[in-house]
Amino acid sequence: MKRDAFESWSRESLAAVEQALGRWVPADAPAGLGEAMRYGVLDGGKRLRPLLVLAAAEASEAADQEAALRAACSVELIHAYSLIHDDMPCMDDDVLRRGKPTVHVRYGEAMAMLAGDAMQALAFEVLTPPGDAVAPGLQARLCALLARAAGGDGMAGGQAIDLASVGRSLDEPALSDMHRRKTGALLQASVMMGAACGTTDARAWAALADYGAAIGLAFQVVDDILDATQASGTLGKTAGKDADHNKPTYVTVLGLDAAQRHAEALRNQAQAALAGSGLAHAARLSVLADKVVERES
Amino acid sequence: MKRDAFESWSRESLAAVEQALGRWVPADAPAGLGEAMRYGVLDGGKRLRPLLVLAAAEASEAADQEAALRAACSVELIHAYSLIHDDMPCMDDDVLRRGKPTVHVRYGEAMAMLAGDAMQALAFEVLTPPGDAVAPGLQARLCALLARAAGGDGMAGGQAIDLASVGRSLDEPALSDMHRRKTGALLQASVMMGAACGTTDARAWAALADYGAAIGLAFQVVDDILDATQASGTLGKTAGKDADHNKPTYVTVLGLDAAQRHAEALRNQAQAALAGSGLAHAARLSVLADKVVERES
Repeated sequence: MKRDAFESWSRESLAAVEQALGRWVPADAPAGLGEAMRYGVLDGGKRLRPLLVLAAAEASEAADQEAALRAACSVELIHAYSLIHDDMPCMDDDVLRRGKPTVHVRYGEAMAMLAGDAMQALAFEVLTPPGDAVAPGLQARLCALLARAAGGDGMAGGQAIDLASVGRSLDEPALSDMHRRKTGALLQASVMMGAACGTTDARAWAALADYGAAIGLAFQVVDDILDATQASGTLGKTAGKDADHNKPTYVTVLGLDAAQRHAEALRNQAQAALAGSGLAHAARLSVLADKVVERES
Repeated sequence: MKRDAFESWSRESLAAVEQALGRWVPADAPAGLGEAMRYGVLDGGKRLRPLLVLAAAEASEAADQEAALRAACSVELIHAYSLIHDDMPCMDDDVLRRGKPTVHVRYGEAMAMLAGDAMQALAFEVLTPPGDAVAPGLQARLCALLARAAGGDGMAGGQAIDLASVGRSLDEPALSDMHRRKTGALLQASVMMGAACGTTDARAWAALADYGAAIGLAFQVVDDILDATQASGTLGKTAGKDADHNKPTYVTVLGLDAAQRHAEALRNQAQAALAGSGLAHAARLSVLADKVVERES
């Protein structure tokens, strides 16, 4: 696929996601809650997860555009809430995110916690619209995928391992287990939620699961490489903080060269999974795998 | 209904809820997360919300016992997570809950935040089991009701108003608006989720919504009365904390006598709604309304 065509699709898709988030994240939630929620999720981030949902929905020939758009926004809401909570003083204590002061710096810790909590609930609201805008069976399936990716076995569980790993040395399998949960589960769920919007056979479903797992891990490996090699200004968040917090990363565990080779191997796994999926319209997923590994921020 | 028969039903129901929570809240969530989650939700609390779900399911002649039990556990998970976050230093900063040290006192703030986050996700996992244990359409309906009650328009929104109200005087309508969201929304959702498990006609649905709204508010009025009149030992949590935090309550806004009359009026509203519902099996909901108003802790 030509990168130009991808970029144009990506721009249009992100505009649709941004508009939908602007509509669904309530400006009128009481006592400043809506403002904090909107600050935490609108106008920021690379929106990789929504793009994965929409590209996987397309690859799965999803007829239901409304469901795919809702799924795309719901994973971004979960991602954004996790960043808000992760940045709080009792977790990573970070003051800069997406080039702006973090939510607790701007609105206080209590409001940041509530905004995150409300955004998690909102993700499931977005997936369950009244009426028949999305088939009820699909609503249930999307909720199931999202809840499992976000919970104790997924993202929250990975964050708990992360907490416990500060100042300890992890070997590569333990580090990968942590990241498969912490970051990988939601990235993989993005792909699977997009696939659920279409009619994916068992072979394609398994291939997309492999693709999602590979790019989910690749994303984190690259994150660690960027954290070690880039300046805060480029990243839009505080660089070098993992090393400062004495957290194990792929760079500290494998070394920079091996980490880069690992990211490359995961990209190849992702591309191989797509090639074996039997899906005719997986080109955008392929570009996304490239972008995950080649990104510079 | 004889109180004896109610108490026996209540004991059996709560045993089933406790057993199900014990099964569904994962002991093996990584790095201590499962332990913190279990500490925060098992073996504690009056379990009013699960009883409301199960009594409303019975009143609605729900055939699907599995769905009602899952709904009962999911509302309790949301309630328990909200208490964990509410007790944290950046919110109410409370050290005692259900007669035990609060989760952040026991496991630290970061783990308390994660445990609450994971419990919210788990609530939606519990509502969306794989296979056909619960009809997909019902799964979607239950997720929709729960998400709206928990989010910015419901519980989290009420907590935001609560935050903003410290040290300010609210009039009775503003106080009721706060509590309708903060406590009432989830109590009312408990009733509606139970009703959704059955086949409730529009008249019964509206009557149960009225019942749920009335007991939801009554619960908070009684909470404020107990907070002002009981000792911490009886409540199993810190008494008098609303006054200490300079928060408006029904007792400070209406006075003790008028607050007691208000609770009585709300009980009568709830009972009148049941009487007009056309439901033949609403006796347990009626006893629950009495218990909400007559409770002493």
